[in-house]
Amino acid sequence: MASLNEHRCETQSQDKDVNLVIEGGMAITMTKAKAPIPGARVLVSKGRILDIGKADEVKLPSGGHFEIIDAHDAIIMPGLINTHTHSAMTLFRGMADDIPLKQWLFEKIFPAEARFLTPETVYWGALLGCLEMIASGTTCFADGYFFQDQTIRAAHNAGLRGLIAQGVIDFPAPGIPDPKENIKTAREFIDRWIGFSDLIMPGIFCHSPLTCSSQTLNKALEISKKHHLPLQIHLSETSEEVHEIIKRHGKRPVHYLDQLGLIDRSLIAAHGVHLNNGEIKLLKKKGVKIVHVPESNMKLGSGVADISGMTKNGLTLGLGTDGCSSNNNLDLFSEMDTAAKLAKVFDLNPLSLNAGAVLEMATTGGAAVMGLEKEIGTLEKGKKADIIVVDLNHPHLCPLYDPISALVYSANGADVKDVIVDGRVLMKERKFTTIDPDEVMGRVREISKKIGN
Amino acid sequence: MASLNEHRCETQSQDKDVNLVIEGGMAITMTKAKAPIPGARVLVSKGRILDIGKADEVKLPSGGHFEIIDAHDAIIMPGLINTHTHSAMTLFRGMADDIPLKQWLFEKIFPAEARFLTPETVYWGALLGCLEMIASGTTCFADGYFFQDQTIRAAHNAGLRGLIAQGVIDFPAPGIPDPKENIKTAREFIDRWIGFSDLIMPGIFCHSPLTCSSQTLNKALEISKKHHLPLQIHLSETSEEVHEIIKRHGKRPVHYLDQLGLIDRSLIAAHGVHLNNGEIKLLKKKGVKIVHVPESNMKLGSGVADISGMTKNGLTLGLGTDGCSSNNNLDLFSEMDTAAKLAKVFDLNPLSLNAGAVLEMATTGGAAVMGLEKEIGTLEKGKKADIIVVDLNHPHLCPLYDPISALVYSANGADVKDVIVDGRVLMKERKFTTIDPDEVMGRVREISKKIGN
Repeated sequence: MASLNEHRCETQSQDKDVNLVIEGGMAITMTKAKAPIPGARVLVSKGRILDIGKADEVKLPSGGHFEIIDAHDAIIMPGLINTHTHSAMTLFRGMADDIPLKQWLFEKIFPAEARFLTPETVYWGALLGCLEMIASGTTCFADGYFFQDQTIRAAHNAGLRGLIAQGVIDFPAPGIPDPKENIKTAREFIDRWIGFSDLIMPGIFCHSPLTCSSQTLNKALEISKKHHLPLQIHLSETSEEVHEIIKRHGKRPVHYLDQLGLIDRSLIAAHGVHLNNGEIKLLKKKGVKIVHVPESNMKLGSGVADISGMTKNGLTLGLGTDGCSSNNNLDLFSEMDTAAKLAKVFDLNPLSLNAGAVLEMATTGGAAVMGLEKEIGTLEKGKKADIIVVDLNHPHLCPLYDPISALVYSANGADVKDVIVDGRVLMKERKFTTIDPDEVMGRVREISKKIGN
Repeated sequence: MASLNEHRCETQSQDKDVNLVIEGGMAITMTKAKAPIPGARVLVSKGRILDIGKADEVKLPSGGHFEIIDAHDAIIMPGLINTHTHSAMTLFRGMADDIPLKQWLFEKIFPAEARFLTPETVYWGALLGCLEMIASGTTCFADGYFFQDQTIRAAHNAGLRGLIAQGVIDFPAPGIPDPKENIKTAREFIDRWIGFSDLIMPGIFCHSPLTCSSQTLNKALEISKKHHLPLQIHLSETSEEVHEIIKRHGKRPVHYLDQLGLIDRSLIAAHGVHLNNGEIKLLKKKGVKIVHVPESNMKLGSGVADISGMTKNGLTLGLGTDGCSSNNNLDLFSEMDTAAKLAKVFDLNPLSLNAGAVLEMATTGGAAVMGLEKEIGTLEKGKKADIIVVDLNHPHLCPLYDPISALVYSANGADVKDVIVDGRVLMKERKFTTIDPDEVMGRVREISKKIGN
């Protein structure tokens, strides 16, 4: 009897803290057990999942005040994780398409950044990115850019989780006219934001092995290591980059970075389009995280990453959209669809990168890339309540034989109905709770008038 | 003064017939002039565009009753044209993914079709397809399947425009247990429906040069020619198909079909993934229409059609989604995005298939493929009023530097707000006027329970 009483007391004490209940839908937990839970109920307390299971096995709290999210005819799943983006680049969405990468970067993007990026414009651009991510079911993102105090401010105000990194490049950059100050700027950025919030992790983003010297890379690594933070970089996005690194350093990019000590488990490398088998094996051995960015690689004509090769070698893989100037949206549902289809046609094998594998990239894989696998990426007791609800009541999601197939091959970001991060509802029935969309879009439209002239 | 009076009389007489006015948005006409019209107004009368221009140049009717579509903060454009689909295959959406094409077709799709297709199931499947097309901005489609009386019934009830073709294959097929009856069935189908409606054109769809004998192909051609109707076929979708045709007939598929007289301007050939340069040149010379179906080709690992080669050679190109069992949706916005990006990465050239070219494929190109270029595909005086309005008031469509880029690279089908076909409003503010979505989805869910078991 004692144990029963204890249990009752514990339930009652937990009951009081439940602030959110999501119920009625089919839960896709992305845990190893993986079987969908029909008619699920999720209890959320203090930002974490207190319980999840079938509604008849998970009792509603007997008292207290809690909000209910109705997930009938819907899928309850972990929020998606965008492991490579530059969210403030929403400012340049659609400004320069269908041109060669070098011209795009050096004649369009870099000059526009130099002219128009200010703390103010980055704030509104990043907030628009956050708005778009919430609207399409992304709850956590890895970002690299300039004036990143403002991206932190935007993510914090939006309520999103993120690894937000200060860009480092050995050229004059927005906010860092003298490249000699780039590492100092990054160090101060880390010092300023570390410990600021449970949801925001600051970091450093080295632009690439081509645009950062070995000294710069070394210093960035040292600071990241000191604070146990991931270090982000663009790696082997184009064949030109690979050839140039070989010319300069006599070895391929992964081996060059390995020589500098960067090739280890703290590194998040985006793109990885031009990696040979030896490089893939070394990346696996050293535990480097790779972010697949298929739509940007397609749009810029960079090539196709060998995802099947990476998967066979057991690499940790996340999925990213890249910035809006090379995609041109932040919709990870669309990115999952493209990733799966691109792998199949690249391998000429319809078995490559099945729907389940690509959904893992956008959830558990993304969590592992960010070093947050113990906190997010699945729906299970004790994990952070980063949860989205996908409305199935749309013609293109009917009928439903396989929820994973529906999510990857049929859905798009607009099907997301509710978004919860850290137990807080950021979107309910497609209404935003933390951001005024008209204000954000209005501000960005104003900024774009100057950029467009 | 006489001419002024006449003009006034003419205007007044036209005025009375205006039943619909679309106004306030930016019109993308897809005419050769092409410049967007800001603050546009479109007058619709008797199913056609009576006038289009800037609002201050196109006067509102002075009397009469007309409906107004508010297109402020939106793009007014021609409805999209899906030139290759099997709409009733919504029934099998997500039933069989990530498996080899042969296994998919022979172990999954063909057996499911044999067991579960009836006039009743095809009707509800096709109607769900129509619902999904309306919901994502498609106003006209080319369809091939079985029990096609029902697809005509669905399209007619939905209010869509279409070329709806009876499938012909030299195997037992749904509704045609004896393949000897396949041509007779097709002939009777044409006789039954020709002249039935201005919006619906009946036709024949020969499954492929591999699954139809030369006799069957000849007879299908003869019937199509007699009625001046297009003939549809799957052409060179897989390399296996090409090899098998060479083995059987000693020549590649295009040359084999040319020998039979099929390679001419009445042929609509879908896929065209494995065509060599000589075949492309012959297709151009003879005026064959090609439908690009990139997402299905990717998902089934079939390969990538050489769209740049076809464009250089001046082929008439449309865009298609294929059926929902190999895509898995009918969203042409998503298909445009993928088509552009796939061409770029296939050519390793970001200049390939720019946004404007892919939007042409889905509008003017699609109209030309269907032989309807004088009636649809652009917004101009005298053309049929097949018009969609795309709502720009979404985070992922902000800011707007280039409306064509936004439509191709950022939008998805859910951004379509209003759909008009032949001057009739089929969707207004995302509410359907001709179909009860709950009924259709409910029926298909019931059918899917049997299929799924």
